[in-house]
Amino acid sequence: MIDHRRLRIALLGAGSVGSQVARLLLENTDELADRSGAALELAGIAVRDVTAPRDVDLPAELLTTDAETLIVGSDIVIELIGGIEPAREYLLQALNSGADVVTGNKALLATHGSEIFDAADQVGASVYYEAAVAGAIPIIRPLRDSLAGDRVDRIVGIVNGTSNYILDRMDLEGADMAEIVADAQRLGYAEADPTADVEGFDAAQKAAILASLAFHTTVPLDAVHREGISGITKQMMDAARHAGYVIKMVAVCERLTGRGTASDGEAISVRVYPALIRREHPLASVHGVNNAVFVQAEAAGNLMFYGAGAGGVQTASAVLGDVVSAARRHIAGGAGVGESTRANLPTVDIGQVVTRYQITLEVDDRPGVLARVAGLLSDGRVSIATVEQTLEHTDEGAASARLVIGTHKALEQDLSETVTRLAEDDVVERVVSVLRVEGD
Amino acid sequence: MIDHRRLRIALLGAGSVGSQVARLLLENTDELADRSGAALELAGIAVRDVTAPRDVDLPAELLTTDAETLIVGSDIVIELIGGIEPAREYLLQALNSGADVVTGNKALLATHGSEIFDAADQVGASVYYEAAVAGAIPIIRPLRDSLAGDRVDRIVGIVNGTSNYILDRMDLEGADMAEIVADAQRLGYAEADPTADVEGFDAAQKAAILASLAFHTTVPLDAVHREGISGITKQMMDAARHAGYVIKMVAVCERLTGRGTASDGEAISVRVYPALIRREHPLASVHGVNNAVFVQAEAAGNLMFYGAGAGGVQTASAVLGDVVSAARRHIAGGAGVGESTRANLPTVDIGQVVTRYQITLEVDDRPGVLARVAGLLSDGRVSIATVEQTLEHTDEGAASARLVIGTHKALEQDLSETVTRLAEDDVVERVVSVLRVEGD
Repeated sequence: MIDHRRLRIALLGAGSVGSQVARLLLENTDELADRSGAALELAGIAVRDVTAPRDVDLPAELLTTDAETLIVGSDIVIELIGGIEPAREYLLQALNSGADVVTGNKALLATHGSEIFDAADQVGASVYYEAAVAGAIPIIRPLRDSLAGDRVDRIVGIVNGTSNYILDRMDLEGADMAEIVADAQRLGYAEADPTADVEGFDAAQKAAILASLAFHTTVPLDAVHREGISGITKQMMDAARHAGYVIKMVAVCERLTGRGTASDGEAISVRVYPALIRREHPLASVHGVNNAVFVQAEAAGNLMFYGAGAGGVQTASAVLGDVVSAARRHIAGGAGVGESTRANLPTVDIGQVVTRYQITLEVDDRPGVLARVAGLLSDGRVSIATVEQTLEHTDEGAASARLVIGTHKALEQDLSETVTRLAEDDVVERVVSVLRVEGD
Repeated sequence: MIDHRRLRIALLGAGSVGSQVARLLLENTDELADRSGAALELAGIAVRDVTAPRDVDLPAELLTTDAETLIVGSDIVIELIGGIEPAREYLLQALNSGADVVTGNKALLATHGSEIFDAADQVGASVYYEAAVAGAIPIIRPLRDSLAGDRVDRIVGIVNGTSNYILDRMDLEGADMAEIVADAQRLGYAEADPTADVEGFDAAQKAAILASLAFHTTVPLDAVHREGISGITKQMMDAARHAGYVIKMVAVCERLTGRGTASDGEAISVRVYPALIRREHPLASVHGVNNAVFVQAEAAGNLMFYGAGAGGVQTASAVLGDVVSAARRHIAGGAGVGESTRANLPTVDIGQVVTRYQITLEVDDRPGVLARVAGLLSDGRVSIATVEQTLEHTDEGAASARLVIGTHKALEQDLSETVTRLAEDDVVERVVSVLRVEGD
């Protein structure tokens, strides 16, 4: 073992990820030293309660409730507390004292990213956050480094494992959402209150982080259009399967050309919603709690990154990769690679985005109905790609027809206004479902 | 635009990748400067013939036949000539003059990697080679940086687009290999002499590079066990499909515990061959000329990286990502991250590896045959997982049976000796096929 420089590592938080990070730092000291070029000395672990039970037995002498003292004099601070405060304050304190920081805190980065990155820039420190998006999957580093000479046009990601688990089981088993959510809660895949996952809040934070990085633009969380999966029914799943699709909750980050506020300028759209994905698409085969991020870049073409989106030890792998990078940089010296917001493209409203709809309607079964519906679509500047009509018989014996309309690409605003007009029209009994199609 | 430091870039080679790299360097100067922290000045492009036709119109004043003069005084040298000489000599010259180098040369790295990396170490320069394996797919950087705090146990990669294209079309269309190879040649997906792709030489080079990186071990090319796909027939494809598999040519890099030359030591196996992959496995849905690399790491679990494995502009994306990294490092100064061969694990012979076989036999249709075959397997220390027996009628009306035997995991040497004994046994008319099963 060659004589390495020593780096002092402060770990904040010893939850499911933090305790695994501590374990790996303590167990793999020689390997980490070899790969970092520095001995990584875990100086302490700041926790709220030193006596709380943990996933991993941690040396009692490392535990402290005094995070601020631990941070002082540390070379690298790993923040795995989560939430906004006190995580934000600790990170700023760490950066101001010259430490590089590693964080898995998506909520903090999605809401206070600019402040954190600016603080790092000021002192020439770096912020690493591979663990904040898609758990163990290397996606931050590929976007920041591997594609640094390329230009990302579009990202479609399955970035929330819980919602993917729910939709995947609904698809595979034809089960109802409620029973699968209950199951997921039993298995620990869903929280007691699953709102953050099911309603897309978690995915929206990750989408904001990915879009900021990919488009060199500050994307505030409230610029992310968000729709959850709670409206997805067994019937919608079955219909999707029948049509060769699967429903996945996706985060879409898209570069739009000629759509910026300046004429001919560029803009971006960032949105989270359940969408139809064609069965042959690589994203369609992402099962269970796994995550995947599909990236379209101008030169590289289509890339996909797949793996575990959560889990303590899995996410710890991403954290340790960042710690090694931070250690190398800390030794090499020089300024860190700041987050670029050079482009700062405007984010357009969902209405300005071009999407494809699949609209399922219950309509009267009488002559002229299809012509009427087609007319409404055409009036709304929406062009029809496919129509499938099936007869359904109600309990009373009266026949009604079901129309499944796949549109060509159209302006979201035109699509949504057309659906409103369809819903109000006499020939339409009910709008059964409206889903966007992504991943073409 | 802030005033950037200027870095002199020398490009060696202007083939399908090189010409795209030149184009992107010339077209995206501002963006690249912003991401690198340095103005990247393309100082010249060394070619064999300045008048040769190229994919991209390049400024005549940049073209030169004098590579050696171009290299002198360059900060970053991009080598896209391919082959061993003069590429090796140029890279060594570049490193000795203090330049960082970016290369896509898999043949050179697989055969002279140690020499190149040692030369870089000597002067504290870095060698970047994302483009050498799996084209546009970021795989080198994730293995080197993202998983730096983790431990790779196994890599199963589809790293040769031509052979994947051939097998994929055989699978989808039920066509013969010969006609698809001819088609692939017409489309430019296969060379006039497809040996390097079809017989696994190209994949073996990439496997050696991946294994060296993942296991911190120098893996010489001749330590890679290699079998090509020329023996794969339409019938084998059909049988695989029937059994829920697809045949893919895979590169397997595996860590073996308790199998090193020292007792209880570690060893590795690196091998390339056609194998049965279960249809549900993410690798099974890698179609056409695409590549994918499936990585199993101790902490991160299963990861997959998917994308274009070849193509001029796609591979240029990987090269430019490396150029930006090299530029950042060149400015920051300090020693580069050397290739670690710390572990230097022994590579075991294919016989010492544990695999699963699927053996298809034509046997006499008479009582006691299955018992005889089962006895031979058991004598050979091979345990049977599944057996399927079907009757076949020959032209003469005599019945013979077909046995498809799936084994449990066993030592490759035991498996292969058992197949030899089966082939020699009286009850076995013919060994129809023997394929390994990977990706479980």
